[in-house]
Amino acid sequence: MENFVLSNPTVLHFGKNVIEDLADQIKQLGKKVLLIYGKGSVKKYGYYEKVTNKLREANIDFVEFAGIKPNPDNEVADDAVRFGVEQNVDVVLALGGGSVIDSAKVIAVSIPENLKTWDVMKGKKVPTKALPIITILTVAATGTEMNHFSVLQNNTTKEKIGTRNVMMYPKYSYLDPEFTYSIPKDYTAYGMVDIIAHSFENFFGYGTSPLADRFAVSIIKEVMNFAPLLLEDLRNYEYRANMMLQATYALNGTLAAGKTSGDWGVHSIGHILSLQYDTPHGASLSIAYPAWFKLMKNKIPERIKDLSLLLFNTEDIDLFISKIEDFFKSINSPIRLQDTGINTDKKQEIINLLTKNEASGFNYQFNEYEKLVDLMYL
Amino acid sequence: MENFVLSNPTVLHFGKNVIEDLADQIKQLGKKVLLIYGKGSVKKYGYYEKVTNKLREANIDFVEFAGIKPNPDNEVADDAVRFGVEQNVDVVLALGGGSVIDSAKVIAVSIPENLKTWDVMKGKKVPTKALPIITILTVAATGTEMNHFSVLQNNTTKEKIGTRNVMMYPKYSYLDPEFTYSIPKDYTAYGMVDIIAHSFENFFGYGTSPLADRFAVSIIKEVMNFAPLLLEDLRNYEYRANMMLQATYALNGTLAAGKTSGDWGVHSIGHILSLQYDTPHGASLSIAYPAWFKLMKNKIPERIKDLSLLLFNTEDIDLFISKIEDFFKSINSPIRLQDTGINTDKKQEIINLLTKNEASGFNYQFNEYEKLVDLMYL
Repeated sequence: MENFVLSNPTVLHFGKNVIEDLADQIKQLGKKVLLIYGKGSVKKYGYYEKVTNKLREANIDFVEFAGIKPNPDNEVADDAVRFGVEQNVDVVLALGGGSVIDSAKVIAVSIPENLKTWDVMKGKKVPTKALPIITILTVAATGTEMNHFSVLQNNTTKEKIGTRNVMMYPKYSYLDPEFTYSIPKDYTAYGMVDIIAHSFENFFGYGTSPLADRFAVSIIKEVMNFAPLLLEDLRNYEYRANMMLQATYALNGTLAAGKTSGDWGVHSIGHILSLQYDTPHGASLSIAYPAWFKLMKNKIPERIKDLSLLLFNTEDIDLFISKIEDFFKSINSPIRLQDTGINTDKKQEIINLLTKNEASGFNYQFNEYEKLVDLMYL
Repeated sequence: MENFVLSNPTVLHFGKNVIEDLADQIKQLGKKVLLIYGKGSVKKYGYYEKVTNKLREANIDFVEFAGIKPNPDNEVADDAVRFGVEQNVDVVLALGGGSVIDSAKVIAVSIPENLKTWDVMKGKKVPTKALPIITILTVAATGTEMNHFSVLQNNTTKEKIGTRNVMMYPKYSYLDPEFTYSIPKDYTAYGMVDIIAHSFENFFGYGTSPLADRFAVSIIKEVMNFAPLLLEDLRNYEYRANMMLQATYALNGTLAAGKTSGDWGVHSIGHILSLQYDTPHGASLSIAYPAWFKLMKNKIPERIKDLSLLLFNTEDIDLFISKIEDFFKSINSPIRLQDTGINTDKKQEIINLLTKNEASGFNYQFNEYEKLVDLMYL
């Protein structure tokens, strides 16, 4: 077991109507709120109205920045920083899924010193101040609601990278499962893949922690148990609540106890696909993981067997991989590039991007990009 | 799933030599430390010297209060409060196991307003201020190092009760598995029972949370996996580290996600035995749990089957109970009252104490005390 620090300052309010006390919490933190959201679905489904009503009832001053895109980028985040500086806001309130919250985190650490968000992402500027961040989650998937990570992409330099900063932990996170009822079947499935992928990444991280491994497998099993139920009943409270809880625990530090880091090799492959072809994050991972397991099965067979035994009670790695693929197929998440319309004419382009970005894991290194891409087309 | 708040402000430093930065953290919190410990084993095994050397090297002013007993009581805690007030301390540093840390928590919330600790335990006085608490753990068992709970007993009124207060979360907890090497085989086993019992209490708590249930079972399985290894090799770093991690997670809130509370009925039975006969906490629980399962098997068969299926892959409750008993026996923790020298002449006394203390669970109520005590003698 590796030395580690276990610490998570986020206060997470989970359940029905939890935003009741939102205004009270905001008032403790500041006077002028920057409300950040995406492309309008929060308005369509009524979440925006519920939240802004709470702010108005409590006479909280707020301004809005809309338009964060899926696979969010630094340019839009920079616009939000400029707006926040002009408006002299002192609290950031994010209403949305991973894209909105990841953007809001970087925006919150960039406003006080008027930093360029890509400089923050690349570590060229290290923020020393941050606005407090409050999040209201509308998509169960990335776990960003209870961690200090953020992923943004740069469409000019063709990079998609993550950063971490303890100031990026949300102060408060509000998780009402009913706020995820409107996520359609396909994106609900992609969220499930993301949760499983986070569990895998932690499982394959550096360090030996049998309890953390078993926690990771617990999440994967519960995702798999609830998937067929939830996908047939998208407005079921219990199913949505369970998925929301799985998502938070998959990346709030619990699965990393006793390890120094996760692997994150498959995420780095997935990010390339999202960057270049706008592939939804979860869909990119259901393509990348089977290929990665096939690439790794002769390199780290014992570790894959550990997982396979806990998850499926078999040491047969090929059977393990086919069961993973079968699950992804069962929820209609793609397992090959051509399933998402990325045909073999893109093969060299993908290899070049993986090479340029040095896509690899922290724990298990790889650079057999041609083989990997072949496996994603297989 | 029930609404819940997930929040744990403790910053936990886990691993080899983690107390290296102890002095730096203390200096951020105050100027004069009250160091609290037990009956001298921390001196015998060198932990006291390691810790006080760190304080001296950093020129940190500290005073000492020694003499916290196992099954700690309010009178000793009151002595510590008086001493802390006189000495004008502003940080509490606890070096020890559950008894020391539980005492230190109540002492820390009692010093600022010079409260009687039993008034705090009984809720007659509600502290509004607290000294910051730092803990250095020497026994893996109770989980107190990362929660806001404390249990004390009153030898005059013959009560042993718990309380909770958000100000009782340690600011920093230091967990170096090597600091637990000196725990003898019997108390190591009792610690294992306590960890399993916390997992059970959470499992049988109010609310439906399949993921939290699976986390609880994960801990129980890992305790059972490591028990025979650790008990034959008490100075093995990996085994000690795993037990320490299990203990922390069994009661740091993780197993309560989606529930309103644990059950705690069996703990309340165990506390009676510790109070009256000084039975070690874990030993009291390995006696009480089999009896409780036998009492409950016709009342909540489905819930016990849920646990049995996850843990032993059987729905046969009698088989489940015998497997639990076999495990406790295998680690030499008592499963009947007479195993600890409490003979049947005490039967009525125990029934009277259970009745007087209204020992029962929050979730599953019971009052068949005669039947229960018979089952503990069976």
